Amino acid sequence: MSGIAVACCQARLAFGDPAGNRAALDRLLREAARRGARIVVLPELAASGYRFADRDEAWQLAEPLDGPTVTGWHAVAADEDVIVVGGLCERAGGELHNSAVLVDAGGVRAVYRKAHLWDGESLTFGAGDAAPPVVDTVFGRVAVVICYDLEFPEWIRLPALAGAQLLCAPVNWPSTPRPARERPAEVVRVQADAAVNRMFIAACDRVGAERGTDWIGGSVIVDPDGWPLAGPLSAPAAGCILADCRLEDARDKRTGPHNDVHADRRPGLYRAILETGTATAAS
Amino acid sequence: MSGIAVACCQARLAFGDPAGNRAALDRLLREAARRGARIVVLPELAASGYRFADRDEAWQLAEPLDGPTVTGWHAVAADEDVIVVGGLCERAGGELHNSAVLVDAGGVRAVYRKAHLWDGESLTFGAGDAAPPVVDTVFGRVAVVICYDLEFPEWIRLPALAGAQLLCAPVNWPSTPRPARERPAEVVRVQADAAVNRMFIAACDRVGAERGTDWIGGSVIVDPDGWPLAGPLSAPAAGCILADCRLEDARDKRTGPHNDVHADRRPGLYRAILETGTATAAS
Repeated sequence: MSGIAVACCQARLAFGDPAGNRAALDRLLREAARRGARIVVLPELAASGYRFADRDEAWQLAEPLDGPTVTGWHAVAADEDVIVVGGLCERAGGELHNSAVLVDAGGVRAVYRKAHLWDGESLTFGAGDAAPPVVDTVFGRVAVVICYDLEFPEWIRLPALAGAQLLCAPVNWPSTPRPARERPAEVVRVQADAAVNRMFIAACDRVGAERGTDWIGGSVIVDPDGWPLAGPLSAPAAGCILADCRLEDARDKRTGPHNDVHADRRPGLYRAILETGTATAAS
Repeated sequence: MSGIAVACCQARLAFGDPAGNRAALDRLLREAARRGARIVVLPELAASGYRFADRDEAWQLAEPLDGPTVTGWHAVAADEDVIVVGGLCERAGGELHNSAVLVDAGGVRAVYRKAHLWDGESLTFGAGDAAPPVVDTVFGRVAVVICYDLEFPEWIRLPALAGAQLLCAPVNWPSTPRPARERPAEVVRVQADAAVNRMFIAACDRVGAERGTDWIGGSVIVDPDGWPLAGPLSAPAAGCILADCRLEDARDKRTGPHNDVHADRRPGLYRAILETGTATAAS
């Protein structure tokens, strides 16, 4: 029994060159499709780049959902009959969002606006207030989050409980020190996010440097046990990673005759995680 | 600046030999103390063993909180001026619990009853209904959970939000297949639990076999970045692992000038994780 091929197009992007970046992403998307991918994930803020000097610069590089970036992804989705999930610097009225879209041959199926903003993003973007979308596709239920969202397990639970079989995450993971022989910490968290929910996760990162930030190139596709099926590459480079994913497997949350990772939750006891602030110690 | 030594005593235990197990645990506890440990974690169901044939057998091996196991740990805690966290098969009235205690020189400071029951445990034990205790000790705030609890990030958030700097987890991790060169999946989840909360976690496992189950021997002590400071051993064996933990570091949840792993949470958006059952897809 085989599944479908999921791909991450780990691009090398140039800050402030949306036309060039769109062309590079288009080539990678079509390469992934040619290699058999049916669902393709692209990085966060893929056309614009990430390291805006200020909001004005982000504004100049932003575009609406009917701008050239999403229109181009729709064209590839229609040409190649693939689903594309990618991140963009979205201009919506007078607001900017760090957004991601899920696009298929029929057009934009979902827009997600990053709810957990990292580093200086809060100076540029309005945070999203809507839960990660979960889209019924021909391949199964596919959800979308962005980068730092992955570090909030409560947030990842929402699409998982809504039946997501594959979570797609455009990311830009900046390099930070780590012990020798360790995977990027971001990958470890993705492995845990997948395993505690028994769903697939495809996180698509970037490579290269941008205004002093080195991107890890840690793109990874993990299975419902949390094991990487593809990536992270030991020598990160631009290109596509692909993995065969039996999305049907993610519908089964059982881990044994007595256990189910969702049914075993005890939501009646979790109320305090909705409180803000830090409680006092119990004794 | 150095911290305090935290230890996990990864024991080789014999099912149904509580006196022998207590003696083995006592030796390991005193060894850890001699090597400088100030907080020592022992396995889950440490004196009784884990693989009960039925509830009656568990009942025979259970003991109350003033039984010989906890009394013995109190004696070591007083002799050696250490904090002991260990798991026991607790008899409370007519009920059995998979429990853990935190004991210091003054006596039992906290009792925790496992809330998420694994495998056949639900046939034997009553599940706990109280949040993980967080105890103010002379070294900082120390919390307690047990084994499968670690796979529920909502549950781990509770003590973390209550200020736990070190989470102690008695565990019995059964061996399951995993890809070559991968750590046990349980360890990966502990790494993520620690990192998303920026706290230390010490999980103490067992080695050896018991009625057809091989225990991993995956004891690990991880830091607030999620990196192992000690363990898991590549060749698991009985003995103590120790790590110097600057518990003060776990009070700082910042990861940069704009970010704080707890303050960046958006609890107002998490309400749906308290709902039971599976929602329908968004579109």
